[in-house]
Formats: sequence, C-alpha cells, structure tokens
Amino acid sequence: MITVLSGGTGTPKLLQGIKEIVNPEELTIIVNTLENDYFSGVYVSADLDTVLYTMSDIINDELWYGVKGDTFITHERLEEIGCPELLRIGDIDRATKIQKTQLMEKYGLAKACEIQARNMGIKSKIIPMSEEQSDIKIVSDIGELEFHDFLIKHQSKPEVLDVKFSKVSPAEGIIEAINNSRAVIIGPSNPVTSILPILSLEGVREALKNTYVVAVSPIIGCDAVSGPASKFMNALGIEVSSVGVAQLYEDFLDNIVIDDKDSNMESQLKQIINKVTITNTIMNNLGVKKNLAQTIIDSIP
Amino acid sequence: MITVLSGGTGTPKLLQGIKEIVNPEELTIIVNTLENDYFSGVYVSADLDTVLYTMSDIINDELWYGVKGDTFITHERLEEIGCPELLRIGDIDRATKIQKTQLMEKYGLAKACEIQARNMGIKSKIIPMSEEQSDIKIVSDIGELEFHDFLIKHQSKPEVLDVKFSKVSPAEGIIEAINNSRAVIIGPSNPVTSILPILSLEGVREALKNTYVVAVSPIIGCDAVSGPASKFMNALGIEVSSVGVAQLYEDFLDNIVIDDKDSNMESQLKQIINKVTITNTIMNNLGVKKNLAQTIIDSIP
Repeated sequence: MITVLSGGTGTPKLLQGIKEIVNPEELTIIVNTLENDYFSGVYVSADLDTVLYTMSDIINDELWYGVKGDTFITHERLEEIGCPELLRIGDIDRATKIQKTQLMEKYGLAKACEIQARNMGIKSKIIPMSEEQSDIKIVSDIGELEFHDFLIKHQSKPEVLDVKFSKVSPAEGIIEAINNSRAVIIGPSNPVTSILPILSLEGVREALKNTYVVAVSPIIGCDAVSGPASKFMNALGIEVSSVGVAQLYEDFLDNIVIDDKDSNMESQLKQIINKVTITNTIMNNLGVKKNLAQTIIDSIP
Repeated sequence: MITVLSGGTGTPKLLQGIKEIVNPEELTIIVNTLENDYFSGVYVSADLDTVLYTMSDIINDELWYGVKGDTFITHERLEEIGCPELLRIGDIDRATKIQKTQLMEKYGLAKACEIQARNMGIKSKIIPMSEEQSDIKIVSDIGELEFHDFLIKHQSKPEVLDVKFSKVSPAEGIIEAINNSRAVIIGPSNPVTSILPILSLEGVREALKNTYVVAVSPIIGCDAVSGPASKFMNALGIEVSSVGVAQLYEDFLDNIVIDDKDSNMESQLKQIINKVTITNTIMNNLGVKKNLAQTIIDSIP
C-alpha cells in the first residue's frame, strides 16, 4: 500500500503519473479539506473534487479545478443577474457538488467521497483528512481574509502576515492507512495550506515517523512552482526553498525529491534529510509525471 | 390598484393578458408559497418564480415552469451520476434560485422577491403570501405524501383522501394591498393548493369581503382545465364544477367568470354569486388571454 498526502494542484499532477504506475487498489490518497465550505447552497471541497476528477480522468488540467470541457451557464447567469459566484462552478461540476452535499448530510463527508469515487470508477481509496468543518483565516495587510476571498477575490495579492487554521480530528482510517503503507508520498502541494493541515491532525506526525516518507518539494529555487505557497511560507517564517520544506518535514521525512535546477542544495539538504533525490519535477506533460512517479516509487526501500 | 391572487399555471396564463391591459404599476400579485421547499441546496418557490418569469416574459409557457429555452446540464448530470433531482431545474433557472436563496437568507422571502422582480424589470408588485415555511401533505391511498412527491414522483396518480397544510402568517402588505385595491382577481389556479392557502391567511377573507372580488373558475364541466385540482377538490368534498368553486368563495365573491361551455350553470351560480360572467376561458393564445383579461377588467364596477 502507498499513501499520498494531497492538496489541489501539485499533487494531482503527480497523481496522474502515479496512477499509471501503481496498482490503483494499492493506493490511498488523503486529501486536505481545510478550505471546504458552502457556496451557492452546495458544499465545496475543492481539493477532494480535484482528486476525484483527476483519478477519473475528467479533471480540467489547465486550471486543476472543475471538469474538462464543462459549461458555466448557471455561473454566468449569476454574474448577469448581479449575484456573482466567488468560485467558478461549472454545470457538470455543480452536479458533483449537489450530490456530495446530499450524501454528506446523510452519511458524512468520508462516506460521501467513497460513494462518489466508486461511482466514478475509481479503485483507489480517497479519504478527506477530516469529517469536521475547519476554519482558515489569512491574516493580511488589508485585514483577516477568508481563504477563498484571499485567493480569488484578492487574487493572492495582499501581503500575508499569518495563516491561522482550526484544529480538527482526523477522519477514520487515516492513521491506519499511514501505518499500513510501505511508504507515504507527500505531493508537491502548498506546504502551509495543504500539507500542514494534514500533518496537524492528531497522530499523523507520529504515524509518519514510523513509515518511510518521501516528499516532493513544491519549491524550485526560491519560489513555488505554482500558487501562493511562497507568501504563506514567508508569513510563517519558513524559508522559501526546498531547504525550508525539508525543515518543515524533518522530524519524519526520509527522502526529499527536488528539481534538477536545485542540485546545488544537495549537500545542505543532506544535513537535514537522509536521502535527496534529484530529478525533473516540472510536470508539464504526462511523460515527466510518469518519470517522476517512477523515480519516487523506485526510491522506496 | 388591482390585486391578483395567483398559483403557478392558470393565473400566470391570465397574467399574460392582464399585463397587456393594466398599468403594471397598478398591479399587485399575491402568490402562493405553500409548496416552497429546499431542493439541491436551493430554495424553490415554484409559483413565485413562474410569476416572476411570466411578468418578465421569459417563462417557459409550455410547462409553466422554468425559463424558456433553458438548458438542463446540471439536472441531467445529476440523473447520470445516480442522484436524480425531483424538480427539473434548468441551468438559468437554477441561478434565479441560488440568488433567491441568498437574498432570502439575508432579507426574507418578500424582500428577495422584490429585489429579483426589480432586477427583472418588473414594475408590478409581487408578494409571496407568507414569509413563513409552510408544510403541505397529500393524504393518499398509498400514504401521506409530500406535495412534490405526489405531483412529480407519483404523477398525481394516487387517490387523494385529504390535503393538510399548516397555517402561516400573511406577509407584510398583503391585507393592505387587498384593502387598497378597487378589485381583487382570483385567477384560475387550483382552488385547494393555490388559492385556499392564500384565503387561509389571517385577515384575508375579511379583507376580501370589503373588496370587489372576481374569480375565474379553473373548472370547465366537471374537470379542471389543467392539473390535479379535481382530485384535491373531491378529497375535500368540494363539488368539481364552477358551482363548487363558487361555493368555496361565496362569502366574499362578487363575480364568477365561467367558460362558454358552462353557460348552462348560470342560473344555479346566480343563486350563490351576484354576478356571473360567461366568456371563453380556454387561454390557448394571447388573444384569448387579453380578451379574458379585458372582460374581467370591464366587469369591475
């Protein structure tokens, strides 16, 4: 069994490679739920949906959000009638969210996700990190912002001073999945808003210490490959580099995968982490994704 | 000022005629809200939306539900993924419902409706009969059913034994609207599930007694022009005929408009209601709708 910790962009890219290599029934994906919330009457679990769509090959992999080829009739109408929708929810995507909301209110989020994954023909196990509603606030130079307001309304532009999020309990099966895995892969997702929330769940860091953990750095040089990770890392006083990532995970990390461009960091990283793997991490096509996945899998003892 | 009491099919047809004749600013429409409920995370006030769409000329006037030319991408996807939606909500229509839900949760239903009407360019006043959530149950030979389950899931087929609905308070401005009108028109809507709920609001029957009231019978011969009105009338022991309708309204009704085909009922009706107007009430084109509206307006003293 392999377990992957995932956010919503970098790790799904990697999952496209992993799913070609690993037996899907041997794969568990634990997904961040920190920013989940209700929008337009439906529960939006953006990272979970991205993972579901990725694993069922319908992801819009330009945006890493929503369904490929979706239409936006309701969304555009809302704009037209003066009720703009913060999240750009497509018409097909909205159906997923309506169904998840109904299933969740009946069975809880984990079971809802399990049912949807099965319906989408996904053989891997996809577990939301928690059944509980979390709360995340971005403390910025223009005040305390909701996560999606910061990301979308303010386009990640404000200076970030702090990131605050509530502590939630892990969903059933998470600790067990980690304990039963021969390796845990931490994908190249935002360390602060996607991975730290999972690491903050009670028992997760302890479980990771007893498992082989390999992390793919989402940072090349001194900037994130995508998204506002740098700002969040800066705000929390984490060095924006693969070294900063390594320090964040050092109590349990066995192997850090960094990009060829950062090969000069190898010796510095080796003082923190046992093993450093250097390869191409810029996943701009399926070949790179598969190679990266293969390199990771091959590195597992 | 003219006030119209409306349900969701017969009266909107008549409204298409009335809006061509009456100054829209002199028109108030009080709309049934009995079956309002949440579906797919949004508040559905079917009759209100039908009246809004009718007055803004975007109604699907084949179904008298939803927006003309709408698409059903989300609705069809829900079916496809095993989560069929009881109500057939179109993509454009869904935007109206999302907006109304948000406005309602902020300002209440009446204000939400007022804002939407204004945004749609409607100059008439459209008031939901109540701000309160009502509850309607159809007691049938296969058990007690939710209204929409009876109507859609069971296609109005079960035998109806009784219709039960909760008492709610009138929305602000309803009694005032009736009191300030030179006439109230009761449209040819289902007397049991559309008009009786409005009549059951505290103060409405009293106010109607002091106003000139003209009702268009939704029954021709011994059957309803459309919908399951006959079943509901039967269940409540109301004769299914214009005479039955007249008896239901006799404490306040000044004039009943019946179809040419029922002219034989004139003398019997005159024993119950002061004035009987006989004309073509089968509104299958705008000409008939306008003629009927004109006949009604002309009959007001």
